[in-house]
Amino acid sequence: MICNFTYNTPTKLYFGKDCIKDLPAELGKHGKNVLLTYGGGSIKKMGLYDKVKALLKDFCLFELSGIEPNPKYDPSVLDGARLCKEHRIDVILSVGGGSVLDCSKAIAACACYDGEGWDLISGKVKAKAALPIVDIITLAATGSEYDMGCVISNTAINDKRGYLDELLYPAASFLDPEYTYSVNKWQTACGTADAINHVLEQFFAKPHSLFNDGIMISALRSLMTNVKIALEKPDDYAARSELMYVCAWGCNGILSNGAGYSGWPMHSIEHALSAYFDITHGAGLAIITPRWMKEILSEKTVERFVTLGTELFGFDKDLPDPEMAEQVIQAFYEFFASIGIPMQLGELGVKAETIDEMADHILEYDSTNEPWMFAPLDKAALIRILEASM
Amino acid sequence: MICNFTYNTPTKLYFGKDCIKDLPAELGKHGKNVLLTYGGGSIKKMGLYDKVKALLKDFCLFELSGIEPNPKYDPSVLDGARLCKEHRIDVILSVGGGSVLDCSKAIAACACYDGEGWDLISGKVKAKAALPIVDIITLAATGSEYDMGCVISNTAINDKRGYLDELLYPAASFLDPEYTYSVNKWQTACGTADAINHVLEQFFAKPHSLFNDGIMISALRSLMTNVKIALEKPDDYAARSELMYVCAWGCNGILSNGAGYSGWPMHSIEHALSAYFDITHGAGLAIITPRWMKEILSEKTVERFVTLGTELFGFDKDLPDPEMAEQVIQAFYEFFASIGIPMQLGELGVKAETIDEMADHILEYDSTNEPWMFAPLDKAALIRILEASM
Repeated sequence: MICNFTYNTPTKLYFGKDCIKDLPAELGKHGKNVLLTYGGGSIKKMGLYDKVKALLKDFCLFELSGIEPNPKYDPSVLDGARLCKEHRIDVILSVGGGSVLDCSKAIAACACYDGEGWDLISGKVKAKAALPIVDIITLAATGSEYDMGCVISNTAINDKRGYLDELLYPAASFLDPEYTYSVNKWQTACGTADAINHVLEQFFAKPHSLFNDGIMISALRSLMTNVKIALEKPDDYAARSELMYVCAWGCNGILSNGAGYSGWPMHSIEHALSAYFDITHGAGLAIITPRWMKEILSEKTVERFVTLGTELFGFDKDLPDPEMAEQVIQAFYEFFASIGIPMQLGELGVKAETIDEMADHILEYDSTNEPWMFAPLDKAALIRILEASM
Repeated sequence: MICNFTYNTPTKLYFGKDCIKDLPAELGKHGKNVLLTYGGGSIKKMGLYDKVKALLKDFCLFELSGIEPNPKYDPSVLDGARLCKEHRIDVILSVGGGSVLDCSKAIAACACYDGEGWDLISGKVKAKAALPIVDIITLAATGSEYDMGCVISNTAINDKRGYLDELLYPAASFLDPEYTYSVNKWQTACGTADAINHVLEQFFAKPHSLFNDGIMISALRSLMTNVKIALEKPDDYAARSELMYVCAWGCNGILSNGAGYSGWPMHSIEHALSAYFDITHGAGLAIITPRWMKEILSEKTVERFVTLGTELFGFDKDLPDPEMAEQVIQAFYEFFASIGIPMQLGELGVKAETIDEMADHILEYDSTNEPWMFAPLDKAALIRILEASM
């Protein structure tokens, strides 16, 4: 069953080795004044910064560097928006991972707005325009390169917000798997865990269709297989290319067009965790996943577990449903542990005494307890999940 | 392994029951003068024509009706282009199946060209512009609603051409599964056979990836399962909606981004068949499919059959490869027969004495014998396939 939906992802994907040769032509469509945004300098170490500068010798480049993981409204978004206004920027070129790109998206909107930018990000005001965004992505993870969302933290108020607007689709995204060769084991594992979670958030919903189920199972199989290869052999092009491509599908809806909408509860929980403790997003999600699964397992949800058990893990079809579900939960736990993620939040510095406050925060900012959700979570459920994850 | 590719499908999909309520807003983006194109009148019988007229009471509507299956350059494309020029048409609204939409795409290009339109369609001249196209699709089959291609027949020279141009992506496509309830059993079966063949043309290629393979297997499973339900119960929304959605993915590359390109040999063969005998496209493809598979089965290709055998049909993994391949070929033959397609070309009026001429025609117009192809077909191979299909 495919329910009503509209779908339109206008981003042009350039994929593969040396694809950035087309960058000047693509950027040139938008103008000459470019704000180059990047993070802590890994793009310099891998030579990408110099390559981009050489390719763009005919453009006027301005720079915003030092964008942090879990990108911050203040200073990064505010600084970027100021630079765009000052230098009449035509297009933003984001070079880096999902955090740099998310920050760039927020900058693109805030640069075209005269009021307080947080009003856009928090949904109080709808943006009327945004600068065009082009990106070179260097981490297979968030899918930001192919969606209209970004996640921005406002540390002043312990808030981490998902901000969605059709204006935020990148005009073009350049995905060269070789730029992910230097991603270390921890980031490779956490990036893949993030992407796996994107699929699972969409898989646990109703109604669903044979077609979407198959696409999502295929995405999970590809991610879980290829991350193991990439961890073993960081410059395996086949594995890195498949991880990079599958991750791009994570969040623009194409995995689940016409399926029910779950509300993305695990992301709601994780956003609170990183707002309070600035932990790595994918690690937080991986730790939460099996605990969340255990919490929502019920007669209503068990069919989803059974489909994962038979189609993804190849478990015996004759297993009783509850047992199959337990085995699926255990399999995800073991998988995440096997790629090097510590499976306790305590190991990432999360403090048990904050759980109650975080549960309130989740319900206030992300509302995981709506009646339309596939598996609503009230405060007691949130606390159980967080406590089990410690 | 994901090879280099670029991908951008800018078409906006509106999917689901009553989605055409958004048609006026969508058309209004392009202008007031609309050329409404349709076929033999089935849209009048089902009430869609009146509904569209009522929705578009504020537009200036001109009409081109009577567009035929396997749409013809002369008269349909030429008439349409003339109407567009005469009435300064802003946007073409195609209402019908893939043939009406294909014809509308060719009209959109020819309307913006002053020379002989066939020069665009045959690839002699590259179009500089095309009118925007919006469509309401009433048949789940060709995928034309989500791609940049069209197939046009020029009966004067027995030619049937695939014409591809980025200018031909529809601006928006409206897919309401209820408009396919009245599609009869023959067209339902042939439309699905067409879509199945689109997947298989892309599946038989190298290299390939775990992710793409999974998507394509999922598409095949969904099509083969849901067509049986729709044939049994024509107004089953779940089945019709899934058929409609999966068919839309057929030809825009999303099933096989980054996989090898096969050259679409079965379509090359079928285009000659319908150019000579005007047979139903999907039926021709269904008949050719198992014979083509038998012809190309070799040590090099057998892995593709084994993947279909284990992943799609659930055959015993321990079967020897050649036996698995034979069973897969037999399974497709039986499947197409089971949905009511006569599995001999002779039953559709194809004459054996034309086979030699058609083989020459295929090699001249579609060249199935290129060294880069996954499984090149020389004249002898084409003759064997056609003779086995009689």
